[in-house]
Amino acid sequence: MSTSSGVNHPDLERRLANFVPLSPLSFLFRTAALYPERPSIVHGARRFTWAETAGRSVRLADALRRRGVAPGDTVAVMLPNVPAMVEAHFAVPMCGGVLNTLNIRLDAASIAFMLRHGQARVLLADPEFSGVIAEALRLLGDDAPLVVDVDDATFGAGIPVGALEYETLLLEGDPQEHFDGPADEWDAIALNYTSGTTGDPKGVVTHHRGAYLNAVANIVDWGMPRHAVYLWTLPLFHCNGWCFAWTLAALAGVNVCLRKVDPAQIFDLIQTHRVTHFCGAPIVHGMLINAAHLIPQGLGHSVEALIAGAAPPAAIIEGMEQLGVRITHVYGLTETYGPAAVCAKQDHWQTQPIGERARLNGRQGVPNLMQEAVTVLNPETMQPVPADGETIGEIMFRGNIVMKGYLRNPAATEASFAGGWFHTGDLAVIEPDGYIKIRDRNKDIIISGGENISSVEVEDVLFRHPSVMLAAVVALPDERWGEVPCAFIELRDGATGDAEDILRHCRQYLARFKVPRRVVFGPLPRTATGKIQKFVLRSQLKSTEALK
Amino acid sequence: MSTSSGVNHPDLERRLANFVPLSPLSFLFRTAALYPERPSIVHGARRFTWAETAGRSVRLADALRRRGVAPGDTVAVMLPNVPAMVEAHFAVPMCGGVLNTLNIRLDAASIAFMLRHGQARVLLADPEFSGVIAEALRLLGDDAPLVVDVDDATFGAGIPVGALEYETLLLEGDPQEHFDGPADEWDAIALNYTSGTTGDPKGVVTHHRGAYLNAVANIVDWGMPRHAVYLWTLPLFHCNGWCFAWTLAALAGVNVCLRKVDPAQIFDLIQTHRVTHFCGAPIVHGMLINAAHLIPQGLGHSVEALIAGAAPPAAIIEGMEQLGVRITHVYGLTETYGPAAVCAKQDHWQTQPIGERARLNGRQGVPNLMQEAVTVLNPETMQPVPADGETIGEIMFRGNIVMKGYLRNPAATEASFAGGWFHTGDLAVIEPDGYIKIRDRNKDIIISGGENISSVEVEDVLFRHPSVMLAAVVALPDERWGEVPCAFIELRDGATGDAEDILRHCRQYLARFKVPRRVVFGPLPRTATGKIQKFVLRSQLKSTEALK
Repeated sequence: MSTSSGVNHPDLERRLANFVPLSPLSFLFRTAALYPERPSIVHGARRFTWAETAGRSVRLADALRRRGVAPGDTVAVMLPNVPAMVEAHFAVPMCGGVLNTLNIRLDAASIAFMLRHGQARVLLADPEFSGVIAEALRLLGDDAPLVVDVDDATFGAGIPVGALEYETLLLEGDPQEHFDGPADEWDAIALNYTSGTTGDPKGVVTHHRGAYLNAVANIVDWGMPRHAVYLWTLPLFHCNGWCFAWTLAALAGVNVCLRKVDPAQIFDLIQTHRVTHFCGAPIVHGMLINAAHLIPQGLGHSVEALIAGAAPPAAIIEGMEQLGVRITHVYGLTETYGPAAVCAKQDHWQTQPIGERARLNGRQGVPNLMQEAVTVLNPETMQPVPADGETIGEIMFRGNIVMKGYLRNPAATEASFAGGWFHTGDLAVIEPDGYIKIRDRNKDIIISGGENISSVEVEDVLFRHPSVMLAAVVALPDERWGEVPCAFIELRDGATGDAEDILRHCRQYLARFKVPRRVVFGPLPRTATGKIQKFVLRSQLKSTEALK
Repeated sequence: MSTSSGVNHPDLERRLANFVPLSPLSFLFRTAALYPERPSIVHGARRFTWAETAGRSVRLADALRRRGVAPGDTVAVMLPNVPAMVEAHFAVPMCGGVLNTLNIRLDAASIAFMLRHGQARVLLADPEFSGVIAEALRLLGDDAPLVVDVDDATFGAGIPVGALEYETLLLEGDPQEHFDGPADEWDAIALNYTSGTTGDPKGVVTHHRGAYLNAVANIVDWGMPRHAVYLWTLPLFHCNGWCFAWTLAALAGVNVCLRKVDPAQIFDLIQTHRVTHFCGAPIVHGMLINAAHLIPQGLGHSVEALIAGAAPPAAIIEGMEQLGVRITHVYGLTETYGPAAVCAKQDHWQTQPIGERARLNGRQGVPNLMQEAVTVLNPETMQPVPADGETIGEIMFRGNIVMKGYLRNPAATEASFAGGWFHTGDLAVIEPDGYIKIRDRNKDIIISGGENISSVEVEDVLFRHPSVMLAAVVALPDERWGEVPCAFIELRDGATGDAEDILRHCRQYLARFKVPRRVVFGPLPRTATGKIQKFVLRSQLKSTEALK
């Protein structure tokens, strides 16, 4: 409440005329009225305008409401980046529902767990995943939600698993129906399960206020222009595509859909639609660099890209620049709506040599414009570490772009918010210019003979080797030292693995005890968003060791 | 409060880690940390960085607090666009105070009224206004606030009227002091008195939330880049400079100060500092066009300008384009933090002839990105008028960029918010594309023989005459018709007044009953922001008629 002293008179309270709960739905309605004929979505041969996207979203919201979706109810989707996925980002919150985007690479047991835990009333499903969905429904039995098949010409005929098809569901709704925004900007807008490596996944609940603010912060921090053309290389199921569906509504921009990450198709879409912006993990960028021979003339226009999930090595920054793509590094977690920190570029970085630029741009950076704070605290004392680039603490966020909490998990919620900050679990330092640099996740620190080894530091050195495309360093149990570093390396196309050469390179840049004791070549296991799954590598090591 | 159903669990309420009251003060602290060495303010020979501006603002906030300014207390300023004015926009809200920017062209009695009604504790005053301030203080007697003189080399030596000088006050504050943001984003940030033509001025109270959102909307709607260079042609005392002081903090941009509007100095500053953006009333733009001979080579780089206060006539759009300035028309009132509607450009306008472009760009437009709605309602029924470009209603706003209300004036507050909308008092139509077009303020409609004549319509025609620089049409009492239109015209440099020629021009475009019955040539009286003061013209007419 306002203080009642001085000018803050109690007769000047919030009222209908001067207070509207913040919600990204406002952006859709404004853009549909202001730019009704501008393109909203491109997908294969399909084209939609903003008037159509608004109309279809209202239809879907009304149909869901008629099917019994009440405020606070969950609607789940198992969809790649197709038009229905964009529409669901508006329609589900419009009818008061909470959007639960499922990771399309998950197995039936995980899907069944999430549908049950989130109490989904409806599930929209793509035919590509009908096998997994059928199995998950079987596991759920009587608890199964209403399933709606979302047919898509870019996949082809699928096996129906639902009670009806998406376009039929839309016909149940009235595009003229009126929907107010949320009653409270704190109301839930989405539910995203984290892909925890141990225990059950946690359901991250986000709200309209945060989605609104982050959608706008995307524009300001990235300098996005009105009518930006955005290619969906980033899965929309991942933290709601970092709020970019809502950002594009605010900008009256274009969503260029993409069913799966394929370099040739990406180049084609970028050139055909003059894409201006896209996002992705380093692996996406790595794939494009590897496929650069497909476009010997380059892309033909300049493109901006965000990169998250891991620091972009020099080879990626340089390779993308040669393609005409300017990279900005961002950092965040599902709990912060995706990236909520940005490695904001400083003018004087431009003139640095590429190695130094990679180091500067590879940091996790500073809070985005609308996130109040990101810092590194000693988790015991909750005091900030000195900005010396050496003292390790835990990265913590505070501000309006932090989740409400974990669904039906008060213990985890309390723990994550202890001391008035959101605890990321990521270990980092603050560099003298105030930028944050991740050292390691707790579990990624390797302790060798009592000394801490940062796996990120070793990986950074590996990335500088010209044959290395991806690298991951994990702890290998060792009788004498406790743990020693083991390097897993995925090579560039055409490169051959030479462990001795790799180790020579490491010895040049690393203290002897940090040099990997073992080097393993081969493709690296990744999550849906391209993050390397270190826990898989660790269990590989364990089973190998057990066989000895 | 959130609903407690479904995912909206009550255990997921607001807490320190995930809820921070929105305030533009956040932008200052972030930019001071992220871009400490970048320029913040340029004024004559003075230069400040963002670290310095933050430090000086904290000093001022702390000094004010030590001098007894408590949360909700008013701090008034009588300042042109000088560095202290920018600093006050951060420091006063920082210590919980409410910033009351006084119109520097007002007389002592008005100033005394505002200081008394607003209960100002402190007044920062520029030496240019020491005469008026001394007289106002005499009127206030024992109710006078603490007065601080803000010396300025660009004015020269002034007569001190205060108890101390600004730099001395700053020394009383500690730049290391810590200030939290407001306890509630609804807390008052500023108090602006409207320059009503009848009755006492009303005190418009705005809040941190609205200032934050409007500062960001300025960036997105105008496509402002990081590090924009903004020239202060718009008085900061006018609706807090439309929130641009806060916008520039968000962008780590540059405030180029300007004591008074002088075309030669404006051209010089634009070229010297490579100004990218400025705002002003049509008269400011008209003066620049008139002075175009000073820069025969043009400005040398492209500049964006906002124009408000009246629709920009074709001659201004064209004249500014020739200078290299691209104009965007915006609309709002003190009650909406300045402009909260924008005549958003559509791509296909570009190819229209200049006359049509002027018509399209001359409309009041659509809500800005972060204002929920602006529309035209029938004030009796509160129903929207049809979008036919003909049916007149009243422009009403709704959303987060609307004032809290009028200070100590519940009757005016209730009236202005009746029916859940803020009533502007401006009459308008909705055109078929959804854009709003002002017809007239209530009092500006001329009723002649029972027919309504829109003074704006007649003025638009007058503006198209090549000799006309400014035009205002008001009602002239007439025995037969009740009222007839009377035109006041300020001519372009070098043009001579030929009433018959003007009337011939009008007859070509207007119905006979709308053609002015009388034409008066001479300079037009203006408000501080360049709006023509029609009430002065009306009283001129009255006294002239009385003498007959």
